[in-house]
Amino acid sequence: MKEKLAPVKQIETKAGMTVDALVHAMRESGVMGAGRLGRAADVLEQMIRDKECTKFFGLAGPMVPGGNKKIIIDFLERGWTDVFVTTGATLTHDLFEALGYSHLQGTACVSDEELNKKGIDRVYESYLPNEAYQGLEKFIDKNFAELAEQKTIKDFLWKLGEKTPSEKPSILRTCWNKKIPVFCPALADSGIGLMVWGQLGQGKKCETRAFDDLKEIMQIAWSAKRAGVLYVGGGVPKNYVQQAMQLAPKAAEYGVQITTDRPEPGGSSGAELREGISWGKLCPDAKFVDVICDATIALPILSAALKERLKQ
Amino acid sequence: MKEKLAPVKQIETKAGMTVDALVHAMRESGVMGAGRLGRAADVLEQMIRDKECTKFFGLAGPMVPGGNKKIIIDFLERGWTDVFVTTGATLTHDLFEALGYSHLQGTACVSDEELNKKGIDRVYESYLPNEAYQGLEKFIDKNFAELAEQKTIKDFLWKLGEKTPSEKPSILRTCWNKKIPVFCPALADSGIGLMVWGQLGQGKKCETRAFDDLKEIMQIAWSAKRAGVLYVGGGVPKNYVQQAMQLAPKAAEYGVQITTDRPEPGGSSGAELREGISWGKLCPDAKFVDVICDATIALPILSAALKERLKQ
Amino acid sequence: MKEKLAPVKQIETKAGMTVDALVHAMRESGVMGAGRLGRAADVLEQMIRDKECTKFFGLAGPMVPGGNKKIIIDFLERGWTDVFVTTGATLTHDLFEALGYSHLQGTACVSDEELNKKGIDRVYESYLPNEAYQGLEKFIDKNFAELAEQKTIKDFLWKLGEKTPSEKPSILRTCWNKKIPVFCPALADSGIGLMVWGQLGQGKKCETRAFDDLKEIMQIAWSAKRAGVLYVGGGVPKNYVQQAMQLAPKAAEYGVQITTDRPEPGGSSGAELREGISWGKLCPDAKFVDVICDATIALPILSAALKERLKQ
Amino acid sequence: MKEKLAPVKQIETKAGMTVDALVHAMRESGVMGAGRLGRAADVLEQMIRDKECTKFFGLAGPMVPGGNKKIIIDFLERGWTDVFVTTGATLTHDLFEALGYSHLQGTACVSDEELNKKGIDRVYESYLPNEAYQGLEKFIDKNFAELAEQKTIKDFLWKLGEKTPSEKPSILRTCWNKKIPVFCPALADSGIGLMVWGQLGQGKKCETRAFDDLKEIMQIAWSAKRAGVLYVGGGVPKNYVQQAMQLAPKAAEYGVQITTDRPEPGGSSGAELREGISWGKLCPDAKFVDVICDATIALPILSAALKERLKQ
Repeated sequence: MKEKLAPVKQIETKAGMTVDALVHAMRESGVMGAGRLGRAADVLEQMIRDKECTKFFGLAGPMVPGGNKKIIIDFLERGWTDVFVTTGATLTHDLFEALGYSHLQGTACVSDEELNKKGIDRVYESYLPNEAYQGLEKFIDKNFAELAEQKTIKDFLWKLGEKTPSEKPSILRTCWNKKIPVFCPALADSGIGLMVWGQLGQGKKCETRAFDDLKEIMQIAWSAKRAGVLYVGGGVPKNYVQQAMQLAPKAAEYGVQITTDRPEPGGSSGAELREGISWGKLCPDAKFVDVICDATIALPILSAALKERLKQ
Repeated sequence: MKEKLAPVKQIETKAGMTVDALVHAMRESGVMGAGRLGRAADVLEQMIRDKECTKFFGLAGPMVPGGNKKIIIDFLERGWTDVFVTTGATLTHDLFEALGYSHLQGTACVSDEELNKKGIDRVYESYLPNEAYQGLEKFIDKNFAELAEQKTIKDFLWKLGEKTPSEKPSILRTCWNKKIPVFCPALADSGIGLMVWGQLGQGKKCETRAFDDLKEIMQIAWSAKRAGVLYVGGGVPKNYVQQAMQLAPKAAEYGVQITTDRPEPGGSSGAELREGISWGKLCPDAKFVDVICDATIALPILSAALKERLKQ
Repeated sequence: MKEKLAPVKQIETKAGMTVDALVHAMRESGVMGAGRLGRAADVLEQMIRDKECTKFFGLAGPMVPGGNKKIIIDFLERGWTDVFVTTGATLTHDLFEALGYSHLQGTACVSDEELNKKGIDRVYESYLPNEAYQGLEKFIDKNFAELAEQKTIKDFLWKLGEKTPSEKPSILRTCWNKKIPVFCPALADSGIGLMVWGQLGQGKKCETRAFDDLKEIMQIAWSAKRAGVLYVGGGVPKNYVQQAMQLAPKAAEYGVQITTDRPEPGGSSGAELREGISWGKLCPDAKFVDVICDATIALPILSAALKERLKQ
Repeated sequence: MKEKLAPVKQIETKAGMTVDALVHAMRESGVMGAGRLGRAADVLEQMIRDKECTKFFGLAGPMVPGGNKKIIIDFLERGWTDVFVTTGATLTHDLFEALGYSHLQGTACVSDEELNKKGIDRVYESYLPNEAYQGLEKFIDKNFAELAEQKTIKDFLWKLGEKTPSEKPSILRTCWNKKIPVFCPALADSGIGLMVWGQLGQGKKCETRAFDDLKEIMQIAWSAKRAGVLYVGGGVPKNYVQQAMQLAPKAAEYGVQITTDRPEPGGSSGAELREGISWGKLCPDAKFVDVICDATIALPILSAALKERLKQ
């Protein structure tokens, strides 16, 4: 066994080295966090280069308040994602920014009571002025008639993306522009959901069904020649892709997960990718890796490395 | 300051002491995990004794595969919960057991490929025979006509609870029996969802709407004299209650959270309860505590302590 | 495989149930945190009942400021520990309390600058009045002549235990009373160490050697018929026992670890016990379990369960 | 408050961008993991540029088996570290490599019993051939006479560094070459310690004292015009520097910590740097940041960014 194993190659850094050069050095070290991050770049590169692979991206967590909105848009715009699944919070944060509001650089060592008095909502170290909800309310009110006609959440979100102002980069608008199916099973659980509730409270109706998106995501999974998955955070987005992999005839052949959740409590969010092999969600011979890291650190690194490798 | 602070009272244990006696000792120690668990029992006791308090219970994580199903049922049956929000996975696991399947005691140190060949799905250390999905399929198929008429997910779940066999203890059936509103915004993201998809694939329709439950949960939150929240795990269940607290005129006055997620990455699941004060989700003078612990350990302890205190 | 596996037995709680009754119920659930905690009680019970087993207890972390001092003393007094390895901080906190100071119930949501002005040292939620260092200084000054003659850290600590006032329960004094070898390789890294430095600064000498304790702990490990290990927290105490197991002819046959450190970064503190099998620190057929839990919660539970089982 | 806060600037990546360019973008995002990593680069840059600052580097964790040995040597060789405190394990791993052994790229999904039979010691995903201990034994045996004369652990380690072969990069040898004081209070707790034990078992003596290093590190801390601290991992290295800061007249004015340990259990390893303000270990107006990240990822990034900034 000793003979066959590669030695841990000690990482060397240099002034002015590119991100990808560092990721390569991490990859050659081969172990622990750095080795896994390096392998993640390889898996994603192979997945993206595989033209017959349908690429699923499940994203949860405060990536927009955490400064990773453009990183995500890159994953959507550059052909790195065929199906996008996310949380209502992510889409709400994205819409806030598209409507002209900014998240602000704050701190977690603060009196939340003071913030409340100042109309600031805290997302750990990132702050949101509460007035953003008023802007969102107006926006949803103006567009509700068209939104409410949509039968699936995906169509609701594409319509939302169509209506989203184009001046600022936006995840929602990019999904619509690029015709990337965007799924969000728990959309009701978000600022957007709350604004829909406001409309319903005025006696309006919303035709959007709870289960009908399943037909579309399952159809995509079912017809994929090969599938690959990227999970940033856990929650519904990861699980929604995972269950599509479970039922589809072909399990995922590429897998990258970035999370800080622990596996031991047994929840889906922290579950190691290999657990998916038992379920038929992941191929036993898939190329896959779990990266245990704050995604606001890991995803920009992977993004820069991929752009360099793919000359984009 | 020194003068006013209580000393850390060193915990003493005794042979045959009751769980609540230990929880009291932890409470008097006052600090770290034990102190927080002790305070959690106090907060829950006060919340339950407060007859004018509407009690919201948001539950995520593998509590059924993890042996806590009856603990949860107790929280529902004994008047400790007025509104229940959970994941589709929890309800699916519950339904599996109600249909006669058992989760099995396994290990995480295992070949997932071997498990897959044996038809075993792994949830960390808990195993599920894959055949449970066939039982679920039959059950949903038999009841789909009535389920599909339901306009809200809550009504869908109550109907499901009504149909759930009563031989075995069941969360779903208890919610229906006790008429506890049960919300699950991402129900499509679950084994139950997959079975609905199977029905839709046969050309059937399902009337359940994506947003309409919001009217009911918001109405409850809006009309509450006082509100209290218990979060086990994060994800959608926590956030769905949190956003109800955010918009309701009165923020929560009691709060207990049990989680192993970290706050630093900034996600809702790991967010400290005090962050909710900035949003108006939690009162600045609320009684609240974050317990950083595997919920399969903490919840049974709290359950036993509460039963002793409440003489139930 | 399915046939052979026990079902996850759902935990039931009752008003007035004993801690051990709950631990048994957790044990029968068999999985996740509760199942592991239940198994830990079994392993410890078997280890303690095994009269030919030498029991090593490696303890790190703020268990004295966290209200677990008497719990630890129980492990020492009742024949549950033959060799104790700990940090200088634990012994310093123990000595502070023996000298009449108390840790105080504080909070982590506080201005550390304000605490500093008030002479309060913060250990997360537990506070220590800074004046305790003056008491410690006097105590070490008074006894330094005898302490400084000791050639090993263990003898230094036994001497310290001998001099420790007996009015209050004390780990150090218990070790001396019970003649339990107490090792602390990094004793210099502690408040006690700082007080020794104060004496050295006055030109005094201290004969205590850095490596000589190894002879004693290795001799104990070497001559053990069987060995068992309990690790609370990681750091030096765990590793110091682990390396004794590594070199001794017989690896540990019982193992319980309580930690919240993660395994993935690869450090010794978070390493799963099974990793020790590769090193020869743990027998392949050992009875062992990793409990991922705040030790201030898990240890009192195990203590109460053990007392009930052992009728102590 | 809103007016004064900077917006979260969304990170942009580019093909071929340098590591430091990415770190700057992270810095400008300002929040969560990425923002903290960016700030860490700023704090370290300022600390290194401050010619009157004495720079303490406390390092724990498997950085050598994890491919970060050269990264650490850079911190020592380039004037970025004035005082180095580490674990015996780190120095043992370093010595193994200097003696010609390599750590190997393995996996944690493995039978540890099989590894044991093959003579492989596992450090999570990094493997060490057990034969390395024989090489270490010979090396210590050959040099023991000179080592055993050393009165302090630091002098022991400098002597060890002097004897370490110079063909391969080595932390120990670099400390000796550069005359960087290297402290390791728990050196007995390591492979090196075990080899010393082997010598003692042959009846040899070792003069090294347990407490005498304190004079040197305290003298350095005492005479520093300003102090800065970098902690990678926790354990003894962090705490040993922290206690020097506590007693020195001047607390640290720069602080960076990289860890994945949690603060809530209250241990020193996971304690937030700000806690040190209460103790007088850190100035209230210090520039400091906690980075919650696997150090094998974060440290190479910081290293590359610093080299670019400092044109080294």
